[in-house]
Amino acid sequence: MSSTFGTLYRVTTFGESHCKGVGAIVDGCPAGLELTEADIQTQLTRRRPGQSTLTTPRDEADQVTIYSGTEFGKTLGTPIMLLVNNKDQRPGDYGEMSKIPRPSHADYTYQMKYGNRASSGGGRSSARESIGRVAAGAIAEKWLKETFGVEIVACVSSVGDIVASEIDPLGLTREQVDATLIRCPDRGLADKMIDRVHQTLEKKDSIGGVVTCVCRNVPVGWGEPVFDKLEAKLAQAMMSLPATKGFEIGSGFSGTCLNGSQHNDVFVQKEGRLGTLTNHSGGVQGGISNGEPILFRVAFKPVATIGLAQETVDFDGHPVTLEAKGRHDPCVVPRAVPIVETMTALALMDLALRQQARG
Amino acid sequence: MSSTFGTLYRVTTFGESHCKGVGAIVDGCPAGLELTEADIQTQLTRRRPGQSTLTTPRDEADQVTIYSGTEFGKTLGTPIMLLVNNKDQRPGDYGEMSKIPRPSHADYTYQMKYGNRASSGGGRSSARESIGRVAAGAIAEKWLKETFGVEIVACVSSVGDIVASEIDPLGLTREQVDATLIRCPDRGLADKMIDRVHQTLEKKDSIGGVVTCVCRNVPVGWGEPVFDKLEAKLAQAMMSLPATKGFEIGSGFSGTCLNGSQHNDVFVQKEGRLGTLTNHSGGVQGGISNGEPILFRVAFKPVATIGLAQETVDFDGHPVTLEAKGRHDPCVVPRAVPIVETMTALALMDLALRQQARG
Amino acid sequence: MSSTFGTLYRVTTFGESHCKGVGAIVDGCPAGLELTEADIQTQLTRRRPGQSTLTTPRDEADQVTIYSGTEFGKTLGTPIMLLVNNKDQRPGDYGEMSKIPRPSHADYTYQMKYGNRASSGGGRSSARESIGRVAAGAIAEKWLKETFGVEIVACVSSVGDIVASEIDPLGLTREQVDATLIRCPDRGLADKMIDRVHQTLEKKDSIGGVVTCVCRNVPVGWGEPVFDKLEAKLAQAMMSLPATKGFEIGSGFSGTCLNGSQHNDVFVQKEGRLGTLTNHSGGVQGGISNGEPILFRVAFKPVATIGLAQETVDFDGHPVTLEAKGRHDPCVVPRAVPIVETMTALALMDLALRQQARG
Amino acid sequence: MSSTFGTLYRVTTFGESHCKGVGAIVDGCPAGLELTEADIQTQLTRRRPGQSTLTTPRDEADQVTIYSGTEFGKTLGTPIMLLVNNKDQRPGDYGEMSKIPRPSHADYTYQMKYGNRASSGGGRSSARESIGRVAAGAIAEKWLKETFGVEIVACVSSVGDIVASEIDPLGLTREQVDATLIRCPDRGLADKMIDRVHQTLEKKDSIGGVVTCVCRNVPVGWGEPVFDKLEAKLAQAMMSLPATKGFEIGSGFSGTCLNGSQHNDVFVQKEGRLGTLTNHSGGVQGGISNGEPILFRVAFKPVATIGLAQETVDFDGHPVTLEAKGRHDPCVVPRAVPIVETMTALALMDLALRQQARG
Repeated sequence: MSSTFGTLYRVTTFGESHCKGVGAIVDGCPAGLELTEADIQTQLTRRRPGQSTLTTPRDEADQVTIYSGTEFGKTLGTPIMLLVNNKDQRPGDYGEMSKIPRPSHADYTYQMKYGNRASSGGGRSSARESIGRVAAGAIAEKWLKETFGVEIVACVSSVGDIVASEIDPLGLTREQVDATLIRCPDRGLADKMIDRVHQTLEKKDSIGGVVTCVCRNVPVGWGEPVFDKLEAKLAQAMMSLPATKGFEIGSGFSGTCLNGSQHNDVFVQKEGRLGTLTNHSGGVQGGISNGEPILFRVAFKPVATIGLAQETVDFDGHPVTLEAKGRHDPCVVPRAVPIVETMTALALMDLALRQQARG
Repeated sequence: MSSTFGTLYRVTTFGESHCKGVGAIVDGCPAGLELTEADIQTQLTRRRPGQSTLTTPRDEADQVTIYSGTEFGKTLGTPIMLLVNNKDQRPGDYGEMSKIPRPSHADYTYQMKYGNRASSGGGRSSARESIGRVAAGAIAEKWLKETFGVEIVACVSSVGDIVASEIDPLGLTREQVDATLIRCPDRGLADKMIDRVHQTLEKKDSIGGVVTCVCRNVPVGWGEPVFDKLEAKLAQAMMSLPATKGFEIGSGFSGTCLNGSQHNDVFVQKEGRLGTLTNHSGGVQGGISNGEPILFRVAFKPVATIGLAQETVDFDGHPVTLEAKGRHDPCVVPRAVPIVETMTALALMDLALRQQARG
Repeated sequence: MSSTFGTLYRVTTFGESHCKGVGAIVDGCPAGLELTEADIQTQLTRRRPGQSTLTTPRDEADQVTIYSGTEFGKTLGTPIMLLVNNKDQRPGDYGEMSKIPRPSHADYTYQMKYGNRASSGGGRSSARESIGRVAAGAIAEKWLKETFGVEIVACVSSVGDIVASEIDPLGLTREQVDATLIRCPDRGLADKMIDRVHQTLEKKDSIGGVVTCVCRNVPVGWGEPVFDKLEAKLAQAMMSLPATKGFEIGSGFSGTCLNGSQHNDVFVQKEGRLGTLTNHSGGVQGGISNGEPILFRVAFKPVATIGLAQETVDFDGHPVTLEAKGRHDPCVVPRAVPIVETMTALALMDLALRQQARG
Repeated sequence: MSSTFGTLYRVTTFGESHCKGVGAIVDGCPAGLELTEADIQTQLTRRRPGQSTLTTPRDEADQVTIYSGTEFGKTLGTPIMLLVNNKDQRPGDYGEMSKIPRPSHADYTYQMKYGNRASSGGGRSSARESIGRVAAGAIAEKWLKETFGVEIVACVSSVGDIVASEIDPLGLTREQVDATLIRCPDRGLADKMIDRVHQTLEKKDSIGGVVTCVCRNVPVGWGEPVFDKLEAKLAQAMMSLPATKGFEIGSGFSGTCLNGSQHNDVFVQKEGRLGTLTNHSGGVQGGISNGEPILFRVAFKPVATIGLAQETVDFDGHPVTLEAKGRHDPCVVPRAVPIVETMTALALMDLALRQQARG
């Protein structure tokens, strides 16, 4: 297990799908930040299951309680423990599947790695693990916003082959994103995406998608070459989320087709600093933020747990037909939006503190 | 700076483009591994500049010396210091450009982050930094091969829009890869790629590409959820390399267009273990290796330093025309092949030792 | 803040004296260990306040709840969150002292370091912080005992100038230790120590003491030179406890008066291994356990919070007479015994796992 | 192995007694610090063997070379590699002892832990390992001095039972310390100590001693509760040095005999800040520096390698008489003085940067 992320803003998460509770300890948050549960709850509520017809029906309010680290509504500089109780536990829900590792799920690898595994749900590989990240990241978002004006906004940019290619990262707001259930700011495409998810759900199938994220007002200088470059930590952060299969920043894979003369972001004078005319770099150069918006995309595969029959084998190698039960999302990307945002905040805040250490 | 990678197999690199030397300390290599300079030199030589018409003419033999950590050709379990002297230093080579930050290069961000920067070459952001990684990774490759039979092979799968889509990862060998200067195993496409690089070079421009990597014989169980999942550490490792803009594992971004029923890798009985029929997962499930080949791709942007005139501004914001001099590769992917392989070995060996710690 | 200890067996603690709860996350405990609250409660109960006339009257049952990381009484290999609610909170108890930093307490340094501090009790510097360590260490003790037969026993070896110099570390048991309230196995001296503490309490004063600890059955080979030598990690562990001022292992300070010919532990053949005739080394050589009992001593200063009048100054520098109120121990060493034991277990288990990583 | 120390100012050392070279990489040194080899050499020369009749005759100039991380005499903010070549290698010098583990030396534990060990000298457990620490710490000393005016001075306060009890830490200077070969500022006692060492040497024996260290002008606020308290990191740092058996800060073990009313350091108004009337705390409260001088003592055991005959057993358990050959110090404390100072600087600088990170 490696459940801690960060060097100075350190988050350690805990919890499985069907234990008593999930959450995190945040160690390293500066003292004096105004903080109450309400500051954290907003992103948890955007992440919670059962919020719409597009998500798992598992009903969890996901109310967070701050157990330590604050007094009179301010942080003390001490560890902040954040706890969300698991309410709608149904340990037997997956019981019949205990002898059959779900294809493309973590049942098999957890069993082989640890020698045992949680009997129900995904255990530690469940999406519920992300609650601790979201809660901890919500604090980071608040600090980044208040200290530097950093704005982090993610949205759904594709569901299956429905691609919203004309998202304007500079003006994107969470209000625009939340205006549709699918969290795509392109309203016309959003409707198509929602239809696609509903069709997929009816077929007891699942579908993948892409989340795009922008970070505005990040100062020049964040990122620690050579191993903790900004894009390296973002990549680790995103690829540590369940169901992610790809990460790209700026021009990404499509940029490999360009020549340097097309791809290079030449400098121009901007207000009080140098900026770049284009932003193929996605806001980083040499692993360090350059003052331009940080732009990246994360690929989410279709959810592994599906109701459709699958011809597979059980742990003993015997052929079986699996029709998975339990509650799960047909498409993770709408709920992934706040997860990507808060996970981004965790990476950025840690790098911000590391840069501050230079004095 | 964050120049250390790994929890148990820890590599700390040092060196800039024009200092006395570059290299690394490897801490945590188990004792008793047979190791001489020759074991390390092979990959350094595959990485070295000046090896063909496709690479920078900077001439460096890049001969490595082991300063500590071995005796009578075996590791002692103590830190191994690996040193490569910089020979072909030309500190003045970039001098005229010192007032002009090269577009899409790290000049500007290093200057802003640190308050000063190396006067010539890329300093710490130079590709020479990777020498320490390659040397340390070559040791990891040897240990992985001898202990578990792990084979890591990377190749060039695209240069610009020339894409080798039919690479067979199961049979890919380094001999096949090195059979062409461009390190693409598809001989027909390799010629086209070489032509493209030569054309680009003539135009004083640069071009991007993609490196594909496969890891065979990785045992089930490597990867440390939740933050140090195998794909998360690979993503960090790859995105910490100079010029990388994207990482994807298994189906990657294209997998987002699939349904779960198409994407899921159903289990089948294989020799003495469960395997999967397909491998959209790319060898990982839940962040842990599942025994299938690990497959991933890394996007490299076109090199930023080009001879073509660029209209940009200097550090003071004054418009200038920059025609960069100095020696650099028109396309990094052929030399990136051994870098990707050894960096992969660094990530894998650390996770292997962490799994061994479970006893 | 730095509330995480350990590389592979990682403990992160949280909680202040008067927040909702205190506890820890244990990350890295191997799967399959039988574990229930009862396994942890024993040491928490030995540590709890209000257990005798020698300790603070603050009444806390300190019942622990396991929130995650176990199922059906076995560990899952996932993070274990351990929570103890704070019940007897009296936030106003120290209120009158808020403008006066208590001499030799952390009020002043916390205020200066963080810019604010908990208004009551010691906040994070309170002895309640150690609850998370004790809970996490109790798990480590169980694993060490079951896996290697390791036995860790601490006792009080001095209170003020009353010194129990004839403790036999080889036969020392927790039953012997707990036979007296002061936790000194020398019954005659124990009575004197208890009298001394009672006298001190009556004078509204406090007194220091020493805890001696022995670890038996530690295998040869634990400890990671050069910075994480066994004695270095033990020293860090002990000196991170509240009120500790000194650490010595084996011959300690008195050994500096000896010649090498007196001090050296010559080897003798023991059952199936080499042992040493004497044990001035205290069970370590070169930072690595040598198979002999590990022996060390920890100095605890007199508690800073006393009822006696002290002439000091307030935060503004104005002279004041402070007669501290609140509840506190006149002598910490009896309650420090389980804290030293469990903190030792945290250090040892982490080093054990690191040695196992060598395969 | 764990050869890295520090979170933000990170030092990784390498090298054995008889390999090609020893040294360190310093990662995290702020850019812009003026730095040349001369700044580092002073402490290396104070540490070097062969400097007087009190030390081992092994002759090493211990000239350091900076391989990376500086340009034009200033740090770049990138890793600084520091190399000292081993010149006077005599691999065969200890050859005859290869079958006999030296009592109280690391031969046995290294062999058991790693499965092999350096054939000659102490390998990694040799005092030569400390060269990397001293070089890296000399840089930290310079930064601490220039940035905060921090002064670190250590001296020998006892050799065997000859104790210099009247050292004034406030006025102690390195000039006073270096005025005698034994590095004790009390000239009368220094002569006695020197005589004692010479007598010990003649007897082919060794003797222990104590080093006392003071750090002046450390600002309030350094130290990271709870596990990286200032005294905890100092204790780890000191107990990671070869031959150390004890650490105490402020009143240390003797303070355990005091009552709180005697031990407490009441506050008084000092220039622009609160100070304390006494300093039993040794400059720390709650794990954080309080602005008073930091005072601590380190116990060094007598050197294990002695020429006197010892009745012991070989690796196979057969009785043998060992008369150790090779070159070694009869008493380590004079050469330990710069090692303690620089190791202190490593701990302090890391904590300083961590405090700066709070912004």
